[in-house]
Amino acid sequence: MTVRAVYPGSFDPLTNGHLDLIERSLRLFDELVVAVVTNPSKTALFTDEERVDMIREATRHLREIEIVVFDGLLVDLTARLGARAIIRGLRAVSDFEYEFQMALMNRKLREEVETVFLMPHEAYSYISSRLIKEVAGHGGSVKGLVPAGVEQRLREKLRSC
Amino acid sequence: MTVRAVYPGSFDPLTNGHLDLIERSLRLFDELVVAVVTNPSKTALFTDEERVDMIREATRHLREIEIVVFDGLLVDLTARLGARAIIRGLRAVSDFEYEFQMALMNRKLREEVETVFLMPHEAYSYISSRLIKEVAGHGGSVKGLVPAGVEQRLREKLRSC
Amino acid sequence: MTVRAVYPGSFDPLTNGHLDLIERSLRLFDELVVAVVTNPSKTALFTDEERVDMIREATRHLREIEIVVFDGLLVDLTARLGARAIIRGLRAVSDFEYEFQMALMNRKLREEVETVFLMPHEAYSYISSRLIKEVAGHGGSVKGLVPAGVEQRLREKLRSC
Amino acid sequence: MTVRAVYPGSFDPLTNGHLDLIERSLRLFDELVVAVVTNPSKTALFTDEERVDMIREATRHLREIEIVVFDGLLVDLTARLGARAIIRGLRAVSDFEYEFQMALMNRKLREEVETVFLMPHEAYSYISSRLIKEVAGHGGSVKGLVPAGVEQRLREKLRSC
Amino acid sequence: MTVRAVYPGSFDPLTNGHLDLIERSLRLFDELVVAVVTNPSKTALFTDEERVDMIREATRHLREIEIVVFDGLLVDLTARLGARAIIRGLRAVSDFEYEFQMALMNRKLREEVETVFLMPHEAYSYISSRLIKEVAGHGGSVKGLVPAGVEQRLREKLRSC
Amino acid sequence: MTVRAVYPGSFDPLTNGHLDLIERSLRLFDELVVAVVTNPSKTALFTDEERVDMIREATRHLREIEIVVFDGLLVDLTARLGARAIIRGLRAVSDFEYEFQMALMNRKLREEVETVFLMPHEAYSYISSRLIKEVAGHGGSVKGLVPAGVEQRLREKLRSC
Repeated sequence: MTVRAVYPGSFDPLTNGHLDLIERSLRLFDELVVAVVTNPSKTALFTDEERVDMIREATRHLREIEIVVFDGLLVDLTARLGARAIIRGLRAVSDFEYEFQMALMNRKLREEVETVFLMPHEAYSYISSRLIKEVAGHGGSVKGLVPAGVEQRLREKLRSC
Repeated sequence: MTVRAVYPGSFDPLTNGHLDLIERSLRLFDELVVAVVTNPSKTALFTDEERVDMIREATRHLREIEIVVFDGLLVDLTARLGARAIIRGLRAVSDFEYEFQMALMNRKLREEVETVFLMPHEAYSYISSRLIKEVAGHGGSVKGLVPAGVEQRLREKLRSC
Repeated sequence: MTVRAVYPGSFDPLTNGHLDLIERSLRLFDELVVAVVTNPSKTALFTDEERVDMIREATRHLREIEIVVFDGLLVDLTARLGARAIIRGLRAVSDFEYEFQMALMNRKLREEVETVFLMPHEAYSYISSRLIKEVAGHGGSVKGLVPAGVEQRLREKLRSC
Repeated sequence: MTVRAVYPGSFDPLTNGHLDLIERSLRLFDELVVAVVTNPSKTALFTDEERVDMIREATRHLREIEIVVFDGLLVDLTARLGARAIIRGLRAVSDFEYEFQMALMNRKLREEVETVFLMPHEAYSYISSRLIKEVAGHGGSVKGLVPAGVEQRLREKLRSC
Repeated sequence: MTVRAVYPGSFDPLTNGHLDLIERSLRLFDELVVAVVTNPSKTALFTDEERVDMIREATRHLREIEIVVFDGLLVDLTARLGARAIIRGLRAVSDFEYEFQMALMNRKLREEVETVFLMPHEAYSYISSRLIKEVAGHGGSVKGLVPAGVEQRLREKLRSC
Repeated sequence: MTVRAVYPGSFDPLTNGHLDLIERSLRLFDELVVAVVTNPSKTALFTDEERVDMIREATRHLREIEIVVFDGLLVDLTARLGARAIIRGLRAVSDFEYEFQMALMNRKLREEVETVFLMPHEAYSYISSRLIKEVAGHGGSVKGLVPAGVEQRLREKLRSC
């Protein structure tokens, strides 16, 4: 059988923790779609297009993945894509409960899609897009925590702010 | 002895999880007051009146309960009402710590009122008013998660937005 | 209506945290039964009788409470006693999950009994019977953590070991 | 690609929560091996053979699954079986941390196997083999919590004890 | 050797929980710097100067401590001050994970500074600056939860709002 | 001032996580005593002497540390040694609550000693002595998780079992 999985997120910006999960997902599932949640209220640092570009650049060396921008209910997207799995990363207990609530709600909304939790490498256990932006915004180095292309874009973006 | 309990919350809107707790409380305490926290900053989806109405409609089949709107310190309300118990629902670990902090603070402010934690039915463990609004706002069905009257009002409210 | 509550536990021995919960329960419920879980495998420090005696002595100043020794399923006891509430203390997140599992199982076994969680005084948040025995066993003082009568019995019991 | 997954556990006995995870795993992975951890110290209620039999009976209606008994390191088993995924159920925060520790250790021992966490149906969130044995041992009903065959065997086993 | 520690925070306002941690830190480290995070967006109740003043007044009876206002990365401050330890209070599990994430990030940014977690007195386990402001804002008493000078300033500040 | 810290534990055996905490403690405190809890019931894999030897060997390259074997209450040891700090490692939420309970009890028994929580390197977040013994006992490699000398002793010990 062919199983398609969706990995949804804001990816504002993509971190090495996200990239690690993408690579792990590719070893488990036949097809992978990275789904970038659009940000209508413009509170994101990067535009939808920039976020898609950063993912495309950072995954060029990997087996082909599809990248989509989406709005609305995640389970509507999985239905449209014929995806059977939703990938989510678990790092900490606090993630866990929110993720469980979401997963149970998604199961209630569409029973045939399964949320699959993967664990990023422990070296990335403390990385989040929010923290990356905070550190970079204060002039700290995020080398090794995000792909090189993202590091470059962060520098440019923050210089222009 | 006659024990009066207060069940405070935003109820924006009432969910089946809230309703479940109201029913459980009625089996334990002589008198129950549902206390709707007013929302001066108008960030709630429903007005105070709408929230009171939804509770009234959904509890019509139950033993009489009182519904009040309140602002200010919860312990001042319990004192005014002569209530001995504050009802709170516990679903998850993350609830737990915030609820404990509040309960200890309330005990410090007024020692004679006891916070009583009840557990909603596990079928409602993932429901919160926030999540209900998010799902309904994206056009998802919340049937079975909120009383029928609330479902109807959510549809109208969101259509008019 | 008259509500009877059961507070089950090993009480090996009774601590001031347990006593605090008994007092809080008496303010909320008409009748209280303290149910001492019997210990057939004799791994308890105190016998069933000693544990009952310690509770009786320490609660002499309070409104009358019933003390029973029981074995078997808790929900069978609550049915026999016509109790509508099971009292449990919550101190920490780790308590929380075990207690929730038990409460959900008890609800599945007998739907009409409700588990009610109360919070002991924060001064007793770190006390458990196990820790009391460990400290007393190493010659440490447990004054202020257990009722005076329990402190005395612990000294005698541990001397004779 | 063909992905084989291993679902390890004691299954002493199989519960409906385990069965639920088996069914979910079959929707995600091409091949599934249920791996029963052998119990050399004989502290299990059921023998290895009985545990295997109960799983075989309860999964007869499903797509073919392999059942093995194993001892030793789980990652040695996955290597021998050519499995790429280890399935684990997550119900509660307390599961979570132990499971994470094990998953990180397994990743350190053999990098190419991924631990995949799935969430059982919330109706089974409070079921564990330990609790099932405790309830059945006290004469309580576990109907609906374990497959019918397991219920029957529990009754026989406990009668003969 | 002489060890300098930094205790960073918003201190909006200083609570007795903060003060308790300052006293504990002074018993462990040779030199202590309390670092007030500046608030450029003016969402704090008290100005930077007021927050510094409240700390100065409340610590007058203690061994000399330095108080600085800072902006930017905490590890840049510790480097500038030659501090080897960052003091953080831990009260609850939810603190824990956020604090760990920050501590791991700070370690990544500057390996030679160690985050040291201390536990405030259990009587202050439920106090936070946010809760203090909420209670005081509703006219509740925060006596015993903040230093006397802070209590006075809260009253004045809230009257003038 | 000169601050002496005690780092208590079973160290059965010493892991790289323990060693990491010893190194971090030496950067913060003037004097460090590693206190090996004796094991009268002989359930430890290594004898008290072996555990002391493994610590001595693995810390030879560090500033001098004292190693003691102790039985009884930890606070009696800290009093005897004139130690002002107890060092404990925190890795996970489940550690956290047990550690807090112990720390509050120790504070109650002897107010002048402070428990200081440090965080091991995230690469050691999943290592415990128990897990090390389990992996080594099943023939798995623990290289990189324990000091080389401990690895050697584990092999010998397990061969002779």
